[in-house]
Amino acid sequence: MLAKIREKTEKIIIGINSGTSADGIDAAIIKIRKSGLETEFDVIGYETYPYSPSLSQRLNRDMGQNAAGAAELCLMSSYLGELFAYSAKSIAKKFSVPFEEVDLIGMHGQTIYHHPEPIAFPGYKISGTMQIGNPAIVAERTGKIVVSDFRSRDMAVGGQGAPLVAYLDFVLFSHRARGRVLINIGGVANVTGIPASSPLNGIIAFDTGPGNALIDAAVFHFSEGKKSFDENGVIAKQGTVIPELLTKLLAHPYFKKEPPKSLDKETFGRLYFQKILKENPGISPANMIATLTEFTIKTITLQISEHMLQKSHSYEEIIVSGGGAENKTIFEGLKRSFPKLAVNTINDYPILGKAKEAVLYAFLANETIMNSRGNVPSATGAKKPVILGSITPGEEGI
Amino acid sequence: MLAKIREKTEKIIIGINSGTSADGIDAAIIKIRKSGLETEFDVIGYETYPYSPSLSQRLNRDMGQNAAGAAELCLMSSYLGELFAYSAKSIAKKFSVPFEEVDLIGMHGQTIYHHPEPIAFPGYKISGTMQIGNPAIVAERTGKIVVSDFRSRDMAVGGQGAPLVAYLDFVLFSHRARGRVLINIGGVANVTGIPASSPLNGIIAFDTGPGNALIDAAVFHFSEGKKSFDENGVIAKQGTVIPELLTKLLAHPYFKKEPPKSLDKETFGRLYFQKILKENPGISPANMIATLTEFTIKTITLQISEHMLQKSHSYEEIIVSGGGAENKTIFEGLKRSFPKLAVNTINDYPILGKAKEAVLYAFLANETIMNSRGNVPSATGAKKPVILGSITPGEEGI
Repeated sequence: MLAKIREKTEKIIIGINSGTSADGIDAAIIKIRKSGLETEFDVIGYETYPYSPSLSQRLNRDMGQNAAGAAELCLMSSYLGELFAYSAKSIAKKFSVPFEEVDLIGMHGQTIYHHPEPIAFPGYKISGTMQIGNPAIVAERTGKIVVSDFRSRDMAVGGQGAPLVAYLDFVLFSHRARGRVLINIGGVANVTGIPASSPLNGIIAFDTGPGNALIDAAVFHFSEGKKSFDENGVIAKQGTVIPELLTKLLAHPYFKKEPPKSLDKETFGRLYFQKILKENPGISPANMIATLTEFTIKTITLQISEHMLQKSHSYEEIIVSGGGAENKTIFEGLKRSFPKLAVNTINDYPILGKAKEAVLYAFLANETIMNSRGNVPSATGAKKPVILGSITPGEEGI
Repeated sequence: MLAKIREKTEKIIIGINSGTSADGIDAAIIKIRKSGLETEFDVIGYETYPYSPSLSQRLNRDMGQNAAGAAELCLMSSYLGELFAYSAKSIAKKFSVPFEEVDLIGMHGQTIYHHPEPIAFPGYKISGTMQIGNPAIVAERTGKIVVSDFRSRDMAVGGQGAPLVAYLDFVLFSHRARGRVLINIGGVANVTGIPASSPLNGIIAFDTGPGNALIDAAVFHFSEGKKSFDENGVIAKQGTVIPELLTKLLAHPYFKKEPPKSLDKETFGRLYFQKILKENPGISPANMIATLTEFTIKTITLQISEHMLQKSHSYEEIIVSGGGAENKTIFEGLKRSFPKLAVNTINDYPILGKAKEAVLYAFLANETIMNSRGNVPSATGAKKPVILGSITPGEEGI
């Protein structure tokens, strides 16, 4: 099976992801040729399969350190396996790809816990990451070989297990003459710097801090649940940044840590917003949202300046992706902060757009079965490049 | 890598298990030839690597449905990964096998939760099993290909995920003229019936009920923690069976369920003993232990009679294994119950003894990489035979 798939000039791979916000399944189906730095691919299609509000809430609760026990995590892993299998079949159907032509599924799963900082256990320093979504169920329902658990191996060699997108970013955006900084603004914001003519290990990538999560939490709170995000950044635009609060927020120790560094979704999440609200009473909704928006902009721009621009002059372009790219206040803020660089959104690169994360896991599944090392040590902090993932046999084996 | 391993006439495989009692790691190293029903193997060596009492207690606590959250399960999975890797290297060294000659590791992991009975989720009936012990860490530390998560695929096709030992039992003990019943008495007791000249799907296998767990809990309780089991069954021999209590115990609904059926370790575990003790005060320690010992004997013998002997006349021999085989009161009780059959212990078959469970996972890892289906539907209740496990690449890939 695997030998046959490896020999094909072009493979069809489905990538499946359930993001940190746990609001649905992102699925992409791609055609891919070769592997490693020579990889070429075309996105056939992309689709989101939203979870019901109650499932989304339950998953968000399950992510708490001690919120869900073994029973819940085990059964939910099986359940997500069923839903992932369903989404894999659905996306092939939607884009008219006969399912028997699909070669492979790359599945990230739903992160339930991610702790890259080592903790002392008897005799060992231990870090760990846990994604649920049972790959045996996906393999059984689809009959396809499934590659899953992409982050563990990078962490086994001292990496943060993130950002795994660095390799794909390099393949897509590295340029002989044009250095690029990629900014992805999801719940958390992360950046990837690819200097002009950089080798793979010249990439720098890390989480900068808050993306949309604090802003979303504020909008949800002040609208009493009627709105879940600041559409186009209009609320932030109506408010005024409160400098004292901004200064306090920028004093968080995370911003002084040297990269590579990564965040869980808790650090700048809903509970952190509750803390801000409690410690800073009397700020109007619009001013609070304006300040939190500026907090995201500032932490991104300050750290890009410090860790990228001041260390290399070879950056010419910034490409913004993720939900935050559609927040005009954020996007304009980033543009103003980098007057000498071209600031574009990922939508100027129509190959990917929102599909990027799901495409990533299809791309990484190809790397795994081709015995190619899919992590970028300069981005994750790993001691060496490793082959990521575990492989679950399809109906006929591997 | 895999292609090369498959071509070898003889492979060296390490099997690793951490049993339901979570008291240590069982490791076996075997030489194996061919696959499927033609498999032949020799056990090179076997060793137990006991956990510290505090680790054992912590793991036993982690098994509770809601005792441990995502953080504990995730980090403990990484930690056990380190310990499993250590035990794999140690067993090769102990039996003077150069580690570069090891082809593969089969790793069961530590069961944290196992729920074969389907539960209703929106749109699906869900069952699940969860073993911890991160395979990426084992693969990274050893450089070897690791096969893990053997139970999930059987459950994905409606099986109980147990007993997986049925296939190995068939390979070892099926006989043209001699029908055999295998009784394994661990914390839980299970039986496997292999009628003379039976095909693979003629096997019947199921958990009968309590093995040693209730007896151990009673000994621990009455000795105030000084003893953990009834050595040679001497305490039970000194006591008298209390018929009223025995009748009550035998009324548990599990004994009326039709096979295939399987148990978690809770049903007849420590908490169940506490319940018995509370509801039946004033029974002397020796009489209580005698009654619990008879409870194990009776549930085994009654169900063998009902589900095997009364349905087929082709059984000639009973082979007892597990810790319970060394409890003389149990063994003699079984002998008395089956006067027409030869009742032997597994030690009369020196190839396996205590190593059986660890050997099983080495055996099943070979099945997986050879694309052979390792479950026995008539034993697990699965709808069909499937290829078990997930495969994590070694240093050079797969």
